[in-house]
Amino acid sequence: MESTLAQRLLAGDRRALARAISLVEDDHPDGWALVREIYPHTGKAAVFGFTGPPGVGKSTLIGALTKARREAGRTVGVLSIDPSSPFTQGALLGDRIRLSAHFLDPGVFIRSMANRGALGGLSEAALQAALLLDASGREDVFVETVGVGQAEIDIIDHADTIVLVLMPGSGDSIQALKAGVMEIPDVIVINKADHPLTDTMVREIRGVLALANLDRSEEEVRSRWRVPIVKTEATHNRGIDELVERLDEHRAHILAAGQLAERRRRNLHNEVLAIATARMRRRLEGELAEDARFQELLLEVVERRLDPASAATELLERAAAPASGE
Amino acid sequence: MESTLAQRLLAGDRRALARAISLVEDDHPDGWALVREIYPHTGKAAVFGFTGPPGVGKSTLIGALTKARREAGRTVGVLSIDPSSPFTQGALLGDRIRLSAHFLDPGVFIRSMANRGALGGLSEAALQAALLLDASGREDVFVETVGVGQAEIDIIDHADTIVLVLMPGSGDSIQALKAGVMEIPDVIVINKADHPLTDTMVREIRGVLALANLDRSEEEVRSRWRVPIVKTEATHNRGIDELVERLDEHRAHILAAGQLAERRRRNLHNEVLAIATARMRRRLEGELAEDARFQELLLEVVERRLDPASAATELLERAAAPASGE
Repeated sequence: MESTLAQRLLAGDRRALARAISLVEDDHPDGWALVREIYPHTGKAAVFGFTGPPGVGKSTLIGALTKARREAGRTVGVLSIDPSSPFTQGALLGDRIRLSAHFLDPGVFIRSMANRGALGGLSEAALQAALLLDASGREDVFVETVGVGQAEIDIIDHADTIVLVLMPGSGDSIQALKAGVMEIPDVIVINKADHPLTDTMVREIRGVLALANLDRSEEEVRSRWRVPIVKTEATHNRGIDELVERLDEHRAHILAAGQLAERRRRNLHNEVLAIATARMRRRLEGELAEDARFQELLLEVVERRLDPASAATELLERAAAPASGE
Repeated sequence: MESTLAQRLLAGDRRALARAISLVEDDHPDGWALVREIYPHTGKAAVFGFTGPPGVGKSTLIGALTKARREAGRTVGVLSIDPSSPFTQGALLGDRIRLSAHFLDPGVFIRSMANRGALGGLSEAALQAALLLDASGREDVFVETVGVGQAEIDIIDHADTIVLVLMPGSGDSIQALKAGVMEIPDVIVINKADHPLTDTMVREIRGVLALANLDRSEEEVRSRWRVPIVKTEATHNRGIDELVERLDEHRAHILAAGQLAERRRRNLHNEVLAIATARMRRRLEGELAEDARFQELLLEVVERRLDPASAATELLERAAAPASGE
C-alpha cells in the first residue's frame, strides 16, 4: 500500500499528495514511512518562505506569484501555516476568487495546516509536508507563516529564500529589525505600496540594513547578498515581476556562492534535533498523563514544598527508569 | 555556604540576591540548590509582566512605575529579558538618569539577563531569578520582555498580570491581536500617547476587544475582567497613576475570583515541564556533540540517503541505550 502511494506521489498525483500530507499531519506511522521512502527524491524544489505580521497580504502576494510562476510553466506548491491566512480558512476570506482559481489548476497544489496546539508538533508535520511537495515534483514551494518576530523553531528557517512581507504601518516589525530581535531576511517586500507612507518606510528599512552592514568588513559587504526592498500591490498584480526577478537572483546567488548546500545542511541538522526533542517531550508528557506521582509532585510545587527544578529532576529520573511494578 | 547565602537573600541582602541570580544564570549547581532552599518562602510578590515590541518605551514605563511604587513604600525588583532594553545595556541608552536613579535606591533591585542563545535556557534561568527576587522580599516584581507575537514558552506567561505595551504606529501588534495570533493581555498600555494617532489606535483596540467578547455568553462577559486601555507618556510621568490603579484592580480581581491560585498552578505545571524538556534537549545535544555516529547520520540526511525523522529515531534510541563499550 505505502509503496503504491509513494509511487503515485512521485508521479505527481495530487490526490496521493493530499493523502500523504494528511498522514503526516495526523502523525500516522504510514506518513513517516512514506517520507522515509520518498526522501531520496527530495531536494529539487526551490523553497521560498514568506513571513510577516497578519494582514499585510502574504496570501494575496503568494497568489500573484503563483500566477507568474504558472505562466512561466513551473509547477507550484503552497503550504500555509498561518492560522489567520485566507488559505487556512479555505479561501473564504478576502480575495476568494483569485485564490480559488488556483485551487482548480492541476499545476498548483495549495494546502493549509492548522495550528494544532503545540508549535513543535505542527512545525514537525509542516517540514514533512514540504518534503512531500518537493518529492511530488513541485518546482516552486511557497511556505506562508505568520511571524511577528521571534518564533523559535520555525518552519520558515528551513526555506532556501526567506521573504519578509510588511506594509506601510508595520512599525513594530521595523523596530524589531532595528533592535536586532528580528533577523534580517533575504528579501523584503512592502505590500500595499499605494499607501503615501511607503517611501518613508523604504527609507527606514534602508537605514536598518545600512546599520547592519556597519559591523561588516568592506569585503564582506561587497561579496554579500544585498537585501532588496520590493514594493508591491499584490491585489493589482503590481511589482510582482520585479519580485520574481529578485527571488530568482537570490536563488542564483546562493547557488553560486555555495550557500544553498550550507543552508540546507544546517537546516537538516536543526530539523533532526527538533524532531528528536519534540518526540522526547511528547513521550514525557504521555508518561506523565498516567502518572499519579506526577500529580503529587505538582501539588508539592504548588504548595511551595518542592521547587520546580527539583520536581523536573525527579520526573526525568522516573521517565528514564524502566517501568517498575510498583 | 549555601545556607548563609540563602539566609542573607531571605533577609533582603542585595549583594546576596545579585550573587544568587548570577549562580542560576550560570547554571551553577549552587544556584539550583539555593532555589530549592528558598522556594518555600516564595509566592508573596506580585509579578507583573511587560511585553511589547522594541522601542515602545517599556523600560521607561517600568522606571516610572518603580518610582510610583517606591513612593507608596513598596520594594521593587525589575528583571529585564529584553536584549534591546536600556536595562540590559546597563542603562547606557535612552533615559540614563531616570534609570540610574533607581540603581542607587536600596529598595529597588534591577537586573537584566542576556539572551544566551537558547531561549529555553534563558527562560529557565529567568524563572528561577524571579523566584529569587520574590524570596528576597521584593513586593512588586516587574519583568520586561520583548514580545512581538508568539514566543512559545515565555517567561511572561508566568506573571500574575500581563501588560502589553504598544505605541501609536504599532500596527503589526494590532493586526496580530485582531487575527488572534497574539493573546489578549490583562492590561493594554498605549505609551507615547501624545501622538495624534493615539485615539484612533485606542478605538481599534476597543474594536478587537469587543470582537473577542462576541464569542462569549453575556454572563461570562459580565463576570470577566474588562481589559483596560491606559494612555501613558512615561517620559513625562503621565498616566502612571491610572496605570497603577488598573494594575491594582487587576490584582484585586484575580485574587477575588480565585484566578491567581489557578494561574499559578497552571504556570508551575508548565514550568516543571519546560525545565524537564530543556534538560532533555541539553542532555541530548551534549551526548551528540561527542558522538561520531551522529555526524555520520547527519551526512546521510544531507545526502538524502536517510530522512530526518528516521535519523531522529536512531538518535533517541542511542541516547536511551546505556553507553556501551563499542
